[in-house]
Amino acid sequence: MTSEITVLSGGSVTSPQGFHAGATYAGIRAYAPGKVDLGMLFSEQPATSGGTYSTSKILSPSVTVTKESVASGVSQGVIVNSGCANCAVGEQGYKDAQEMAQLAAKAFGVAPAAMAVSSTGIIGVELPMGLIRNTVVNIESSHSGGHDFARSILTTDTVTKEIAVSFSASGKTVTLGGCAKGSGMIHPNMATMLAYLTTDAELDTAFLQETLSEVVNSSFNMIDIDGDTSTNDTVLLFANGASGAAIKKDTPEGETFIAALLEVCTHLAREMVKDGEGATKLIEVTVEGAESVADARLAARSVASSILVKTAIHGNDPNWGRIMMALGKSGAEMIEKNIGLYINDICIMDGGLPVPYFKESLIASMQGTEVRILANLNLGTGSAIGWGCNMSEEFVTFNSAYTT
Amino acid sequence: MTSEITVLSGGSVTSPQGFHAGATYAGIRAYAPGKVDLGMLFSEQPATSGGTYSTSKILSPSVTVTKESVASGVSQGVIVNSGCANCAVGEQGYKDAQEMAQLAAKAFGVAPAAMAVSSTGIIGVELPMGLIRNTVVNIESSHSGGHDFARSILTTDTVTKEIAVSFSASGKTVTLGGCAKGSGMIHPNMATMLAYLTTDAELDTAFLQETLSEVVNSSFNMIDIDGDTSTNDTVLLFANGASGAAIKKDTPEGETFIAALLEVCTHLAREMVKDGEGATKLIEVTVEGAESVADARLAARSVASSILVKTAIHGNDPNWGRIMMALGKSGAEMIEKNIGLYINDICIMDGGLPVPYFKESLIASMQGTEVRILANLNLGTGSAIGWGCNMSEEFVTFNSAYTT
Repeated sequence: MTSEITVLSGGSVTSPQGFHAGATYAGIRAYAPGKVDLGMLFSEQPATSGGTYSTSKILSPSVTVTKESVASGVSQGVIVNSGCANCAVGEQGYKDAQEMAQLAAKAFGVAPAAMAVSSTGIIGVELPMGLIRNTVVNIESSHSGGHDFARSILTTDTVTKEIAVSFSASGKTVTLGGCAKGSGMIHPNMATMLAYLTTDAELDTAFLQETLSEVVNSSFNMIDIDGDTSTNDTVLLFANGASGAAIKKDTPEGETFIAALLEVCTHLAREMVKDGEGATKLIEVTVEGAESVADARLAARSVASSILVKTAIHGNDPNWGRIMMALGKSGAEMIEKNIGLYINDICIMDGGLPVPYFKESLIASMQGTEVRILANLNLGTGSAIGWGCNMSEEFVTFNSAYTT
Repeated sequence: MTSEITVLSGGSVTSPQGFHAGATYAGIRAYAPGKVDLGMLFSEQPATSGGTYSTSKILSPSVTVTKESVASGVSQGVIVNSGCANCAVGEQGYKDAQEMAQLAAKAFGVAPAAMAVSSTGIIGVELPMGLIRNTVVNIESSHSGGHDFARSILTTDTVTKEIAVSFSASGKTVTLGGCAKGSGMIHPNMATMLAYLTTDAELDTAFLQETLSEVVNSSFNMIDIDGDTSTNDTVLLFANGASGAAIKKDTPEGETFIAALLEVCTHLAREMVKDGEGATKLIEVTVEGAESVADARLAARSVASSILVKTAIHGNDPNWGRIMMALGKSGAEMIEKNIGLYINDICIMDGGLPVPYFKESLIASMQGTEVRILANLNLGTGSAIGWGCNMSEEFVTFNSAYTT
């Protein structure tokens, strides 16, 4: 039996015991009152860690340094800058990422290998290391610094994405926290955008990485904003054991931990989509009855990422033929005459045939901020949920003038 | 040595000898003066034929009937309706497609198997067979009917896409003609949209199909408008031998024929992209130095179909980091420090490093109706060209209200 998972009010990445964070304005992004663009997150005690990363062949050296830190087994924190992706800048990028790790390690009195590094922003521009060197010392880390850290990682995001949950394990309270940034270049492939997850549970590295990868596949990897995959995508989880609760694989506490991490990541993933560039509607696509979970994921992602589905929903247009098109091109096994289709619980198609429905009432139901699509392939038991957002004229306008 | 290929002025699908075509207004699409929505194309004498088709799991039964016609070996014409995709309508769709073939076959006095069928338009609506039955008899086929046929297959297209070329073979003049429609739901996968190709050369079926598949891979399969794949994509080639020239594989004439077909298909593919929904600019992406042709195609298609590249070019924004992102996520092998990158012949990156360029002059050069991107991966000898179009606010507006 898994125990109850509680969402904490005002939770952040520093809600779990033993985590510090803070941020400052380094001047990498254009100034605005209260803006921060350089942040650090740190566990006071050693932690186990794991990560999932962009699968792009053009990878930011910040990701490379992070992989090395996690592989070293001593990673217990991360330094992040927004405004510059530190990507496609040649060998200087790796040197700069290493120096960022050194600067953060010095601040916390640990070895450079203990610090991961993330960068997000414009590709093809070198990090302004003078600014970072001079301002990193201004960061005051504290147990209440999670919200500042969450602000420091944003780029085109309009709101922070944060959450913390807790549950009981062997009489101890285990807490998980997380924050993420998204907004553009988002069609995940193995890993996605920036997300930082913390817990005061004690986890062995193998169970931590296995759990993280599986949860990322069901959450961050199931969202789409614009079909593009960033060079800097990173999801990191740190577990420091400060709660005194050791969580093991194949135990009730282990199952609860997985459920809690899934709740944290699903929340952050949905928040990311809702804050997609120019987006006003969340599209939730559920695929049931697929031959396998892999097929269900393919089909749900295909619908959630179709530009023609996104634009139709932007116009509250129940053009469900486009949903059938997106299912058909997904690569998932399907037999047309088995398919059932619903929009906002209104049945559109049954046994592969259109069924009569009252179009005006469906259009009315699509005016809200959330549109739910359900496709039942009636072939097997695989199911999955994917999330996308509407595509608006504002998305195009915004992305037509990002650097100029 | 291959002989010279000449583009014919005012060429169409009926430029090759022995081909008839015509069209009428059946009432499937909203009426406008001069509008036609039902067309037929026919070779007076038996022909060899081949096709490439949508790989979607949700396929229009019109495509199924076409596959059967081509497989029968006696296909020598096609009937096409626009305004209705005849897709996702259950078993009635197959019956209707069969009846369309029968109606066309009766008009020309051939067996139903001799007629292929295409449908394009809204998914999920049954064909208005009463209208088609009553109006198909109004179609007057003629040697000059190619232009009318090209108009009848359009949906959201704003212009027809037509071309004919000729070359000399053994003292005979061989002519090739083609027309196509595109505009939306276009990100080809094996085959794409509707295109009809004719020639008065004599070709055996094996050489015809092999040549068609290879040429389609280098032309129609290298374009992208919106990343989506239709349920009805079809490319058909008919060869009737009326010129008296028999073209064989592995001969100089065979090489010229392949070059001529590539010229026809590349022209139609580029025209399709230029007429993409809301598009004002053609984006031509050349990838050189890839490990293989397959890798070059992957990389060129990834750049040409990236929403973030399309929106940046819409705004004349030389945000080349997005091109690197799209190359990186393509799956093609690449080593960052080898990459050279050019926009409109202006070098942006050399040896994986940004090089200084005058930004204002690059922005000025991007104002035109064509933007050329060249990426040299400097790894091998594979090269490919892909085509996309800018993504505009008009694209979103247009696609937000297609059925309502």
